[in-house]
Amino acid sequence: MNGKKTVQEAFNETAYRIAGNGNRDVQVLKEALAAVENSTASDIYGTGEVIEDFQTKMANILGKETAVFFPSGTMAQQIALRIWCDEKEVKKVAYHPLCHLEIHEQDGLKELHHIEPILLADKNRLITLEDVANLKEDIACLLLELPQREIGGQLPEYTELEAISAHCRARGIKLHLDGARLFEILPYYGKSAAEISALFDSVYISFYKGIGGIAGAILAGSEDFTKQSKIWKRRHGGDLISLYPYIISSDYYYQQREGNMQQYYEGAKELAAWVNQCHDVTTLPAQPVSNMFHMHFQMSKEQIQPILSAVYEATGIGLSAGIRATGEHASYCEISIGDKYADIPKEKLKEFFLLLDKLMSESSAE
Amino acid sequence: MNGKKTVQEAFNETAYRIAGNGNRDVQVLKEALAAVENSTASDIYGTGEVIEDFQTKMANILGKETAVFFPSGTMAQQIALRIWCDEKEVKKVAYHPLCHLEIHEQDGLKELHHIEPILLADKNRLITLEDVANLKEDIACLLLELPQREIGGQLPEYTELEAISAHCRARGIKLHLDGARLFEILPYYGKSAAEISALFDSVYISFYKGIGGIAGAILAGSEDFTKQSKIWKRRHGGDLISLYPYIISSDYYYQQREGNMQQYYEGAKELAAWVNQCHDVTTLPAQPVSNMFHMHFQMSKEQIQPILSAVYEATGIGLSAGIRATGEHASYCEISIGDKYADIPKEKLKEFFLLLDKLMSESSAE
Repeated sequence: MNGKKTVQEAFNETAYRIAGNGNRDVQVLKEALAAVENSTASDIYGTGEVIEDFQTKMANILGKETAVFFPSGTMAQQIALRIWCDEKEVKKVAYHPLCHLEIHEQDGLKELHHIEPILLADKNRLITLEDVANLKEDIACLLLELPQREIGGQLPEYTELEAISAHCRARGIKLHLDGARLFEILPYYGKSAAEISALFDSVYISFYKGIGGIAGAILAGSEDFTKQSKIWKRRHGGDLISLYPYIISSDYYYQQREGNMQQYYEGAKELAAWVNQCHDVTTLPAQPVSNMFHMHFQMSKEQIQPILSAVYEATGIGLSAGIRATGEHASYCEISIGDKYADIPKEKLKEFFLLLDKLMSESSAE
Repeated sequence: MNGKKTVQEAFNETAYRIAGNGNRDVQVLKEALAAVENSTASDIYGTGEVIEDFQTKMANILGKETAVFFPSGTMAQQIALRIWCDEKEVKKVAYHPLCHLEIHEQDGLKELHHIEPILLADKNRLITLEDVANLKEDIACLLLELPQREIGGQLPEYTELEAISAHCRARGIKLHLDGARLFEILPYYGKSAAEISALFDSVYISFYKGIGGIAGAILAGSEDFTKQSKIWKRRHGGDLISLYPYIISSDYYYQQREGNMQQYYEGAKELAAWVNQCHDVTTLPAQPVSNMFHMHFQMSKEQIQPILSAVYEATGIGLSAGIRATGEHASYCEISIGDKYADIPKEKLKEFFLLLDKLMSESSAE
């Protein structure tokens, strides 16, 4: 390996991509718009066919009374928790220590809504019924993220989920689903989106994860809940005169990919098996339960990067450019399977992992 | 007149439109995207060429150190006021009683930021230096909207504006510009956007008013100010993975229309002169100072609507479908001149106003 190229540069030049649905470029939007008549009218501040039809469609898919389209999940979820807190007049919620609201939103929930989160479970494992049952303080809402992204996309057993839901209902605790990747977990659970959503009082889903849209989110729940959410959406500055660029693309890519989730899931399991045969690297979870997993390297970011660059250059296959350090001799990357995985000939993939294993073995022997 | 069609129906069927830049349909976005390469990379959470280049361009046009692209003005302006309040540790601002934040945002400023606004001036007139000088309470920021949209788009004399700016600087009061229609007022003042912005500490501009884009806003100010605004943008849920549908269209229509503002302004003055020759209707302001004005009818909404429908049907020219009641015998509509005005043959326009005048005279004689 020449080691001159950064992992990002080597990745950018690869012809094949193991993860994802392709580059996030303007063509993605153009393709979605090409399927729509030029004369299609814009939504206007949350009204109009283009937004109302999609909201109705998503409410039906999620088995909820109503749904509201939001520009982002950050906005949708803060608002969901705020509504439940206001209703109960309790400014406390509970969620996982690695919840999106806790680590990726600049503390919007605290700074804008003055809601205090209680962090449940250890950050390296899932929230259990026991964690919820042991809660000492009264909370308005429990947020569950399925799958738990920051620990590789893990899922509780479905019976555990049902038990948590029943417990929350019995105690007057609202249950909110961070379902950014809800469609991606349906094959593992063997359930419909509506069946899973029925365990929750409010549900958020995203359109740019497995669905591969541009941006945008849906928040679904009872009519009273979504009515309030529209008021907060305006307060947050999310009630745009036109959200149709996101709505049209969300609908287009939902139609295109919602039927592929089983394929992505099978791809993730196959890929994880390859990974786990390599030296000094394991997947989390050991066997994926959705289209995603994390690859944990038993070497530093600085050590693994040139190895990956060399493998990308030699094979023309890109795995990830986003390697994150987790310790002196530990690093990881996140892999989410989409359309691109199926494009790679199995022989080439075998070549990729043989070389990766070889270079990692050599590196750890040095 | 048959009076069977509603004013909206009659308006929708007209071939000519007096106001605006045409229908808000998907073609508007398709046209803007057609000017961009398919391989153009998306912005990613506020980074990347497509967003950074546009922010730099707008900072230069506004003569500010830096600028940040926001999905909406609602979000941008609340955040601007919040930053100034936090800096001074005073949770009070002042603005006009018909300020956008006061009447169109579901009290987001109060509910999310707990900022108390002091309403300056009577709602029917502009804020004056005297109003500001007479303020008894300490405020962190004064927001001025130029032009003052809800009273027909009125403007203070430029010397008054300079005096208010000097006063605020001397008293340690930050001055924020609601410049949703900033480009539209440049011909009247005979100033550049940077010259006007120089009087203010922070400036917001919109891309879907005179510019005719899809949605989106710029907030400009010092580097420290915009750095803080990005943190709040994330908290509000506005730091989307992809804002490029709005950025590309904002840039495209800015390039297309920023040079037309003199033309729109002249059109508004010409049109207002026609209006003021009609029976029972006057414009506010009497002579426009931008591309906009309000038409005030001395008759009820119920009385004027069938008259307008009949004129639209007879002439094929649409003026407005949005008539709002202001009293038992008073109603108004807002007119903003854009590209469409120049398409109408003057003879047809004359016909329109002759018929409008005739029907209004007959109606008031009944």
